[in-house]
Amino acid sequence: MKIAVLPGDGIGTEIVAEALRVLETLDLSFETESALVGGAAYEAHGHPLPESTLKLAKEADAVLFGAVGDWKYDKLERSLRPEQAILGLRKNLGLFANFRPAICYEQLVGASSLKPELISGLDILIIRELTGDIYFGQPRGRRTASDGHFPGAEEAFDTMRYSRPEIERIAHVAFQAARKRSKRVTSVDKANVLETFQLWKDVVTEVGKEYPDVELDHMYVDNAAMQLVKAPKKFDVVVTGNMFGDILSDEAAMLTGSIGMLPSASLNASNQGLYEPSHGSAPDIAGKGVANPLATILSAAMMLRFSLNQAEAADRIESAVKHVLAQGLRTADIWSEGTTKVGTREMGDAVVAAI
Amino acid sequence: MKIAVLPGDGIGTEIVAEALRVLETLDLSFETESALVGGAAYEAHGHPLPESTLKLAKEADAVLFGAVGDWKYDKLERSLRPEQAILGLRKNLGLFANFRPAICYEQLVGASSLKPELISGLDILIIRELTGDIYFGQPRGRRTASDGHFPGAEEAFDTMRYSRPEIERIAHVAFQAARKRSKRVTSVDKANVLETFQLWKDVVTEVGKEYPDVELDHMYVDNAAMQLVKAPKKFDVVVTGNMFGDILSDEAAMLTGSIGMLPSASLNASNQGLYEPSHGSAPDIAGKGVANPLATILSAAMMLRFSLNQAEAADRIESAVKHVLAQGLRTADIWSEGTTKVGTREMGDAVVAAI
Ligand SMILES: CC(C)[C@H](C(=O)O)[C@@H](O)C(=O)O
Ligand SMILES: CC(C)[C@H](C(=O)O)[C@@H](O)C(=O)O
Repeated sequence: MKIAVLPGDGIGTEIVAEALRVLETLDLSFETESALVGGAAYEAHGHPLPESTLKLAKEADAVLFGAVGDWKYDKLERSLRPEQAILGLRKNLGLFANFRPAICYEQLVGASSLKPELISGLDILIIRELTGDIYFGQPRGRRTASDGHFPGAEEAFDTMRYSRPEIERIAHVAFQAARKRSKRVTSVDKANVLETFQLWKDVVTEVGKEYPDVELDHMYVDNAAMQLVKAPKKFDVVVTGNMFGDILSDEAAMLTGSIGMLPSASLNASNQGLYEPSHGSAPDIAGKGVANPLATILSAAMMLRFSLNQAEAADRIESAVKHVLAQGLRTADIWSEGTTKVGTREMGDAVVAAI
Repeated sequence: MKIAVLPGDGIGTEIVAEALRVLETLDLSFETESALVGGAAYEAHGHPLPESTLKLAKEADAVLFGAVGDWKYDKLERSLRPEQAILGLRKNLGLFANFRPAICYEQLVGASSLKPELISGLDILIIRELTGDIYFGQPRGRRTASDGHFPGAEEAFDTMRYSRPEIERIAHVAFQAARKRSKRVTSVDKANVLETFQLWKDVVTEVGKEYPDVELDHMYVDNAAMQLVKAPKKFDVVVTGNMFGDILSDEAAMLTGSIGMLPSASLNASNQGLYEPSHGSAPDIAGKGVANPLATILSAAMMLRFSLNQAEAADRIESAVKHVLAQGLRTADIWSEGTTKVGTREMGDAVVAAI
């Protein structure tokens, strides 16, 4: 088994280092190989996703990813900016199924913006399609408008699109995930306005017939954005497209108040996956040793479960994380009165010790 | 002055009736004419936006709109569904500037999902572009995919687009609105992925140079969805495109917990406008006399201010609404222990009396 380790920028190196230490503690047999990605790769090789990094990621069974990005790259042309690395990896590895759990840990209920009774016990799984939609649709670019409100003016455009098999495969992922949980799927669309999401709704409904034991409902994206705030616990598995999933998964993550705790997995058809924390590269605190490594450590657990067939080891990591929370250890982002503030390394130490 | 009155479906008739009573109390000189729209118009004329209704709306100085929609029309082909009426009105009247305030009334702080300290005093103005973007972009439809992941498969597609002048005019609306408030604008985009929103960001930045007294910042839509939950009071004026605005304005509205209180205005270049509550047609409570008419009454106030040049009368309505809240009167949606539950009509009566 081979893991490609891509720490990236900002706090990426620090948090990935802790996840690796946790993995090593488990005494499993796997090989790791590191490479640069994002801004770090741009500095060294002139491109955020160098050929060698992509090759390594493709050959590995799984990719453990830190984070990419820094304000200082904002002025670069789009194709050279750090976030192109993550889009390039998704596309080239065919990572179409993104799992974004939004879980509220009991000890961290107070960190949420929401009233405790609304958020306590929250456990949503957002499944976001990750290789289609307006993220990758062609054509896109700039041109002179030939119609619309201002014919002759400069305009920019993008293409939203989904094909039937793309929707089918992500729908199957969602229904299968729901079978292992509370057997409910909410499909989020905008079928009242968009042709793409009318097809989405039609196909998800069809696929749903193969899962008569799973309850399916449909919700417009604007309503979903509201219901997540109003009554988040009503959701269980949510499946949606790439663009709406980007927005809703971040909204749901922030509802928990502890985005520093939330892992994510992006899988392709052969269960090869990329695992990364749900949060970003936080350049403002990079190198200070204060970042929360738990989302990355939990991403490593997802990696063991989904791509490396080591569910038991994954369980051990997840229990260890619960244990350190119960011990009252907190990094700055989740710290509150009465708990013990620790740094990145100490948090890693505590998880290692708990294992 | 002529007001086209389009009550629509569900609770639309009840809430618009109260707004009209409030308007009549003010003793202004205007003419009103009513017409069917949405499902009601479909039943009577076979189309959700009959020619006669559109003509009336075009000729009027302002449109007072209730709500449209009912589950029973879900099976109709898209072009006949109630919501096409609202899209048709926006397009045909050129209502490109949508004002969606998200205000938390002090007496209703408890209705929010958020902790009181995060929401108390909230006063955001979301300005959503309303006639462009993927809502109206051509081409759109179904076809056989010629490339992508599954060439040869059936696919559906839509076109996202914005032209420079479309962005310029909505940016001016936002900066001008900010000048009357706390002089801060947040422009929401997804320039890291979408060509359309790279142009959006560029043009908003350029227009911003004409308003050196207004502070401009840019935020990605996924981050905006998070920051709205985390610290909504950090926002003042938010300007964004049609699709992102649909999602974020509903999210922001629900943060207040009292969407039954939130009005909206949609204006064109000549300040002709359509005014409607931010909530929907609520078919489940239609005809029961329990719906909250205040969002519609406050929409009528916006109408007086923006389209009918009657700012003073608008102030009187807004003060009257604050007065009835202070009296402790509440419709069911905003009722809480210790306040007096009233129906639609009684709430209208109270506002009339307060004026
Ligand atoms: C960095 C950006 C391109 C990316 C996305 O929009 O998908 C990020 O927001 C995410 O959700 O992983
Ligand atoms: C009904 C629907 C077409 C509409 C929209 O998406 O614009 C609604 O959600 C709104 O925000 O007014």
